[in-house]
Amino acid sequence: MNDCVFCKMIKGEIPSYKVYEDKTVVAFLDINPVHEGHVLVLPKKHVVNLEDVSEKLLNKTIKIVKKFGQSIKDNLAPGYNIIVNNDPVAGQEIQHLHFHVIPRYDKDRLTTWTRNQYGEGRVELIQKQLKIN
Amino acid sequence: MNDCVFCKMIKGEIPSYKVYEDKTVVAFLDINPVHEGHVLVLPKKHVVNLEDVSEKLLNKTIKIVKKFGQSIKDNLAPGYNIIVNNDPVAGQEIQHLHFHVIPRYDKDRLTTWTRNQYGEGRVELIQKQLKIN
Repeated sequence: MNDCVFCKMIKGEIPSYKVYEDKTVVAFLDINPVHEGHVLVLPKKHVVNLEDVSEKLLNKTIKIVKKFGQSIKDNLAPGYNIIVNNDPVAGQEIQHLHFHVIPRYDKDRLTTWTRNQYGEGRVELIQKQLKIN
Repeated sequence: MNDCVFCKMIKGEIPSYKVYEDKTVVAFLDINPVHEGHVLVLPKKHVVNLEDVSEKLLNKTIKIVKKFGQSIKDNLAPGYNIIVNNDPVAGQEIQHLHFHVIPRYDKDRLTTWTRNQYGEGRVELIQKQLKIN
């Protein structure tokens, strides 16, 4: 896409800190990291989100995500989060599918979201709504 | 594993709200959801984390994650997050690999982690450390 920041970084029109590249997948350091070593892994093809990516390309992408998890644990931190913000309401800022791989440390004070409970009858209803075959 | 809660749920020894099951992958509703419809997708085989899962089984799992993203958007919410907390330092509470798929809504007030900047020379150093082939 013409105005996509990631597509421009892939083409070299915007500078980036690449940490991996093959024919179909690329990875950059996030320049505003949660922690140093925060990596973004993405398909080179401009796909907007998970609904937009082929099974084959998703498999290639998650394979590299896994490798960066290992690289982070070998070189940097004792654990990591993988996060996809899928759609603007979920915090997706660049409309080109990307996986965040974020190094994590003991007592780094990053908080998780509050968990809730289902009200009477709700869990059975939602189960019916979401069930897939 | 004998004492794994997810393994017990898979075997039916602990009740659960299953929303998908095949030979190798299963999905439950998280009983303490961030939002209603918060789904957990996992391989049935007891693998601890991403480093522990085969490429084939990871591909099967991410395929079902993608399907639940679609189900959430078709039935419930305009977007979603995918999250893996890999290792206890990253918030992994049950040591059996699982993908969270969390419905998201406009202005639902869930916050993201503070982003930082690299100090002088740090980004080049980290790039060298994490680079993979």
